Formats: sequence, structure tokens, C-alpha cells
Amino acid sequence: MKAIEDLVSLLTRLPGVGRKSALRIAYSLLRSDLAFSEALAERIRTLRATIHFCAECGAYAESELCQVCSDLSRDRSIVCVVEQPQDVITIEASKEYRGLYHVLGGVLSPLEGVGPDRLNIGKLIQRIQSSRATSVPILEVVIATNPTIEGDTTALYLKKLLEKEPVRVTRLATGIPVGGDLEYADRLTLARSFRGRSSF
Amino acid sequence: MKAIEDLVSLLTRLPGVGRKSALRIAYSLLRSDLAFSEALAERIRTLRATIHFCAECGAYAESELCQVCSDLSRDRSIVCVVEQPQDVITIEASKEYRGLYHVLGGVLSPLEGVGPDRLNIGKLIQRIQSSRATSVPILEVVIATNPTIEGDTTALYLKKLLEKEPVRVTRLATGIPVGGDLEYADRLTLARSFRGRSSF
Repeated sequence: MKAIEDLVSLLTRLPGVGRKSALRIAYSLLRSDLAFSEALAERIRTLRATIHFCAECGAYAESELCQVCSDLSRDRSIVCVVEQPQDVITIEASKEYRGLYHVLGGVLSPLEGVGPDRLNIGKLIQRIQSSRATSVPILEVVIATNPTIEGDTTALYLKKLLEKEPVRVTRLATGIPVGGDLEYADRLTLARSFRGRSSF
Repeated sequence: MKAIEDLVSLLTRLPGVGRKSALRIAYSLLRSDLAFSEALAERIRTLRATIHFCAECGAYAESELCQVCSDLSRDRSIVCVVEQPQDVITIEASKEYRGLYHVLGGVLSPLEGVGPDRLNIGKLIQRIQSSRATSVPILEVVIATNPTIEGDTTALYLKKLLEKEPVRVTRLATGIPVGGDLEYADRLTLARSFRGRSSF
């Protein structure tokens, strides 16, 4: 069945989709109403044409600026630095943060040949500096790169770099996840949550 | 991000795709090369137009007859009865069976109002009877409905019905799966594998 095999081999290139899941998806498409598979195909086809990168912060955007950058009610004195555009969506979903974002587009990784020049860092400095001419200068940069070796290295690099700027540099807390269990926390997480302990 | 949300809500209607997986798929499509997402969209769009049901056995087919029915090297004296078109693909993948198929299109389910008239049973009887006028009459019907209450009921119903025809009626063996462990076999499977034990 070539049509099914072709679809399955494309589907298995998606994250988290193995051959069995791909077959189940193909069969369900064969049984589903035609309108559904047509709508799905159309959304996949047009996704890339609809979504751009925000000219200001690098997050996903449907027009020149993303929803956050064009929202005048956001706190423009604080910028959260993330690795990838999807991190913005993840943080937005938590509804905890009301400031702006800055997407690096990756992390420093000497092994993979990713140096500072490959990341969207120059623009961050420029945003901080030009904000001083406005009524709301950037006062704090929250570094929200992942707590991995590369993410931590990138955070340290940015901290050093931002020492020259009159901004407070902070880092997201690492520790045991809420609802987690000490028993299942790895040694590094546990060590970090000790170092980061707060008075209670 | 409406374009992403729209795609995610469609993707979560696929089997085995929750919200997190759907988001991961959407992000990977945003990062993938354009040719890939266009190929995927095209395959999904054309799948239903390419795949039909075999006029003879009801399996998935790309022309009037499926690959099995149009393959003259298959053993036409034996017919394997399955519930769904995808079961044919599953059995074909095992490369164990060389006969023909017959797809019922479901199982008897009084609770859901599925009676014998809703299944592709009349055509099965007709195939058996008209095969007698050919050089290779159908001699055996292997019932391969799932070993569930509905599948077993359907198998029993077919066995009764086929008593009138000069064919041998068999049922796929049920028992402990190869590579399985007695410890994890449920009581019913274990009971069936005792009843179906063979000399060794």
C-alpha cells in the first residue's frame, strides 16, 4: 500500500512518532471524515507561511511584531532571555510573567561550533541600550536558558557580558519540581536545590 | 499564536497524540525544511483519494482490486476473515499467510446496534459459493477476528453460518504471546492457552 507507506515514512520523522503510532494515525485518517484530513493538511501546509519571527525579540509572530512585543500593557522594564521561540509559548502558558522576551535561537555549544556570534545576542545588548532613551528603560534581564551544561554556560556568558550594562541579571530557580519527589530527584537537581534554599 | 493553536487542536484528534506531543510536532514542523511539511500536507490531503476498498474482499486498495486479490500467486482455496482493513496489512507484514482475505468492516455488537446485516457477511458467502464454479474452490475459512467478546461472538456466528457450506472453519490460536511472560499473562489468556495446549 504505497500511499500509506509514504505517509507513514513522513510521519515517523515527527518527534515522538514511531512506526506503530504512524500506522495508527494513517488508519485513523482513512476512517476520519474528509473535512478533517483536508483541514489538517491545509494547516500543515500554511503553518510556515503564517508564522514568522518577531523583528524585535525573535519569538514566533503572525505579523512583524509578536503578541507580547505589540502588547502595550506588558512590563517593558524586564526582559526574559530564552533559548527557543517555543519557550516563549511555554512561559506564556504559565501566566506568571508579564515582561518582554528575547529569543537567543540556541545555546553556546563549542562542540557543535555554536559561538556567541551565532546567537541573537547583539540585538539583546542593542535593545537594552536603546531602551535607555525611552521612558521605560530595561532594568532586569531574567536568564531562562535550560538548566543544562550548554544552558548554564550561555547564562554565565550573558551574565559576564551584561555586567557592563546598568541592569540586574537574574536566573530562573532550579530545584525539585512542584509535586515531585525527593526520591526521584537526581543528584545534581538535589545539590542545586540545597544551594538555592531559601528561608522559610 | 492562532496558527499553532489551530494545528495543535487538529493534531490532538489523532490517536495517541496529546497536547504536549501536538505542540512538539508543531514546533518541529516550524523548524523543518519547507519541502517536508509540504510533502506531509500533500500526503495527508491525497490519502483518502488514493486509497479505496477492494471490490472483492474489502481491504484497502489503490485500484479496483487490492494487491492480494489481484496477485495470481496467492492460494485462492483459503480465506482469512478479519475485522478491519488494517488487519490485512498487519497479517501481511508477518509474511506467514499466503491465502486471500475477507474484511467484515466491524464486529457484531448488539449494544452498539451492529447486527449481521451491518457487516460484509453476505459477500463472504457469495464468494465461497461462486468459488465452487472455478478451478480453485474455497476450502478453508480462517476466522481472525480479535479475541475479544465481540470478536469471539462474531467468530461463533460465522462458524454457525458456514456449517451449511462445504468449507473447514478455523480460528487463530490464542495464548501467551511469543517473548511474553506467564507472570504478565492475564487469567483469560492463560486459561485459553491451557485449553489450546498441544503435544510437544
